[in-house]
Amino acid sequence: MELAIRKAKETAIGIVSVKNSHHYGIAGYYSLMALEHDLIGVSMTNAAPLVVPTFGRTAVLGTNPISLTAPASKENPFVLDMATSVVPRGKLEVRDRLKRKIPLGWAVDATGKGTSDPHAVLDALSKRLGGGILPLGGEGEEHSGHKGYGLALMVDVLCGVLSGSATGLGVDVDKAKPNVGHFFMAIDPAAFRPLEDFKRDMDSLSQELKNSPKAHGQNRIYVHGEKSYARMEKHRREGIPLGTAVVDSMKQVGTELGVPFSY
Amino acid sequence: MELAIRKAKETAIGIVSVKNSHHYGIAGYYSLMALEHDLIGVSMTNAAPLVVPTFGRTAVLGTNPISLTAPASKENPFVLDMATSVVPRGKLEVRDRLKRKIPLGWAVDATGKGTSDPHAVLDALSKRLGGGILPLGGEGEEHSGHKGYGLALMVDVLCGVLSGSATGLGVDVDKAKPNVGHFFMAIDPAAFRPLEDFKRDMDSLSQELKNSPKAHGQNRIYVHGEKSYARMEKHRREGIPLGTAVVDSMKQVGTELGVPFSY
Repeated sequence: MELAIRKAKETAIGIVSVKNSHHYGIAGYYSLMALEHDLIGVSMTNAAPLVVPTFGRTAVLGTNPISLTAPASKENPFVLDMATSVVPRGKLEVRDRLKRKIPLGWAVDATGKGTSDPHAVLDALSKRLGGGILPLGGEGEEHSGHKGYGLALMVDVLCGVLSGSATGLGVDVDKAKPNVGHFFMAIDPAAFRPLEDFKRDMDSLSQELKNSPKAHGQNRIYVHGEKSYARMEKHRREGIPLGTAVVDSMKQVGTELGVPFSY
Repeated sequence: MELAIRKAKETAIGIVSVKNSHHYGIAGYYSLMALEHDLIGVSMTNAAPLVVPTFGRTAVLGTNPISLTAPASKENPFVLDMATSVVPRGKLEVRDRLKRKIPLGWAVDATGKGTSDPHAVLDALSKRLGGGILPLGGEGEEHSGHKGYGLALMVDVLCGVLSGSATGLGVDVDKAKPNVGHFFMAIDPAAFRPLEDFKRDMDSLSQELKNSPKAHGQNRIYVHGEKSYARMEKHRREGIPLGTAVVDSMKQVGTELGVPFSY
């Protein structure tokens, strides 16, 4: 990402294609780096198969996230950081640990049918029996699951095919020879218009969205990044809340390793 | 788009930001131009408000489409061309003309509540009473409607804010002084790896998806663009089928204008 940022500062745009990499963590980690330089930042990666294509029953694509950040002035910067699947794998794992069901429309079982059992999905995935998470838009085409599938594929084209890394089923983060591909881009808004005008218009758009009328029963509209900035501040102040199942598993690991646990 | 293509051929990447433009038609029209030069093409535009932000009840963003094309060798090129809303306005209009309901999860009424009546949505939108189409992912956050909302906003940032055109509620295609913004990008894969390798890997990824096991009751997995290429060939051969309501309205317009109609 540093290279894309340097290039953007020189020539307005920088694109860096990375091949044979590992799991790169959080997509937004890299796009956020662009904000320190008042640039628009883009970060994408392909990932090991977890997502079934529309009308399929086997995971072929990863949760292939897209992150884009853009600086604002008084408002929080715009920070989009999203898996192109309905949910990331972590949401299934959390529900599984809490012994809760998942809504229909998040995942399919080994036959490609919608299921509300997160454990069955994770188990079938880990045994490569089929099933997987649905792309954004859900099952089939009625709610445009093919769009989420298209976005996941777009990310694989820009990360895997463009760099010459593995794609689709071939992506494997556990391999001795890592083969994940990333796509980083930085764009300098100041090359297109005065930076202060860009930031002022980011503020206005953000305010317009947040001030627009709320749906019945709702009292707030968020702009992307806002919730995380608020949560970060709250957790810095008050600490990070943990579920009892997480606390129990930490205790157990602690006992196994002889690390005392108190709270 | 020609300028972005020319720039990409010289320096690997071209970005062109367009301001104060009109409704630009089909997003894919521009990204398809890149394919003739063996480039990756990207085309986005903002548009007049039709889409409600998550937890809102008034349309603030347009259906803000994203199109990305990438060349392949034996397979059809990858052609993604999607509104960032669950459906484009046209799908509501078609259902309205056919007097059919829409699925819950496509749109909300003036109070921000999900509705299955396309006429109520279109009527409220045209009278600016509220309501509108939902972002990809649907109502609320359960199926990640905030992601579709984020993508729509990302498009407005890259098209409206970056160019200095109107954004959000301000976008108006009917104005005397047009104020729509577009974002065009072309990337030369040959600047990153041999073009033939890129195209070969596009073929493999495409084939891997199409050959992967089908969900129960499905017999085909598509790659984006494939359906349209097939439909284009079929319609070139057999003509374009029209619904009776469309034929009736064409007859009526013909009668009004004195143009004879025969079929």
